[in-house]
Amino acid sequence: MKVGVLGTGSVGKTIGTKLVELGHEVTMGSRSATNEQAAEWAASAGAGAGHGTFAGAAASGELVFNCTSGMVSLEALGAAGEENVSGKVLVDVSNPLDFSKGRPPTLSVCNDDSVGEQIQRAFPEAKVVKALNTMNAAIMVDPASVPGEHDVFVSGNDDGAKAQVSELLQSFGWPAERIIDLGDITAARGTEMYLPLWLRLMGTVGPAFNIHVAS
Amino acid sequence: MKVGVLGTGSVGKTIGTKLVELGHEVTMGSRSATNEQAAEWAASAGAGAGHGTFAGAAASGELVFNCTSGMVSLEALGAAGEENVSGKVLVDVSNPLDFSKGRPPTLSVCNDDSVGEQIQRAFPEAKVVKALNTMNAAIMVDPASVPGEHDVFVSGNDDGAKAQVSELLQSFGWPAERIIDLGDITAARGTEMYLPLWLRLMGTVGPAFNIHVAS
Repeated sequence: MKVGVLGTGSVGKTIGTKLVELGHEVTMGSRSATNEQAAEWAASAGAGAGHGTFAGAAASGELVFNCTSGMVSLEALGAAGEENVSGKVLVDVSNPLDFSKGRPPTLSVCNDDSVGEQIQRAFPEAKVVKALNTMNAAIMVDPASVPGEHDVFVSGNDDGAKAQVSELLQSFGWPAERIIDLGDITAARGTEMYLPLWLRLMGTVGPAFNIHVAS
Repeated sequence: MKVGVLGTGSVGKTIGTKLVELGHEVTMGSRSATNEQAAEWAASAGAGAGHGTFAGAAASGELVFNCTSGMVSLEALGAAGEENVSGKVLVDVSNPLDFSKGRPPTLSVCNDDSVGEQIQRAFPEAKVVKALNTMNAAIMVDPASVPGEHDVFVSGNDDGAKAQVSELLQSFGWPAERIIDLGDITAARGTEMYLPLWLRLMGTVGPAFNIHVAS
């Protein structure tokens, strides 16, 4: 599959590398076609890795990952272009962490809205699936690195899109029964608002953790 | 121990009943000394159970539980009286769920503040410990009702107060290693902002669940 990965941070690189390892063709997108981080990643990640602008990456992908910071995701997707995400599954991994007032960060949107919902409203023809935003990047693509059972959440308005993302997550190593469908995209409020607890837990146990829903 | 339990909802009743079963003397407090819910609870919960006003309950307790709704906790504690909580451990179990705009509820305070912090600021001589607000009432006092490992969070500025609450939680059935200290009272933002995810999970798996931090 051809996948566009928007964002050159650790999340974009980690997911991009995993997708290349799984045999997908990945184009990492950024603001500029000559972004150094993206070029270095593409040079090192293997034969299936390329890079380009947000628009180029989105246009090339049958499926698109939004791995930009939630504070700038709408802008990045605007640069990617509505025509390049319409009709496609758009996996939103972002969190609206706002460090502008210092630490701990606040959320730039929360409570009655979320980045996931903002993206779905701005790009109504995209099939937005919120996923993977509740854990460290390394765990997203290597769930077995955390011992025991732990879970990944998906939410979105399109059941077919969620099923496709669920398959992709299983190819990342997630057992099907540990993929929890929270319902429509408004559930993104829940997973994004979990971030302040995630940050406190990271301070207590370090980044290599994830939560499990025991029931 | 003498314990004041503020609030006559399911959380107050459940915690009050458990405390009575453990041999503590519990006074359930409410707005009015003749509250029917409190009177019925006191009549049915056993020899150690009484009821009274918020002020009467707080005054009688060596330790005080705030089990009122987070939307009215400051008001309830104001009625309880600063002199009746000063110097005492004040366990805050509340969540600021605001149903005034319909469902799902929003949080009446979040992001850069929390009920736990509001209470600590308003009653600086109380030793506020946020705890137990991340699960259904039945699980708070019967953790073994959920299979497998799962966790309870405590936060607060006073280590001695957190140690005392930890002992009480162990008497409720929580293993010491499943009580996670998140640090100072600002961590209450994290546990209160987890509520939207908790509500979505409740819709998916029902109320009999709790989360475990796998690491």
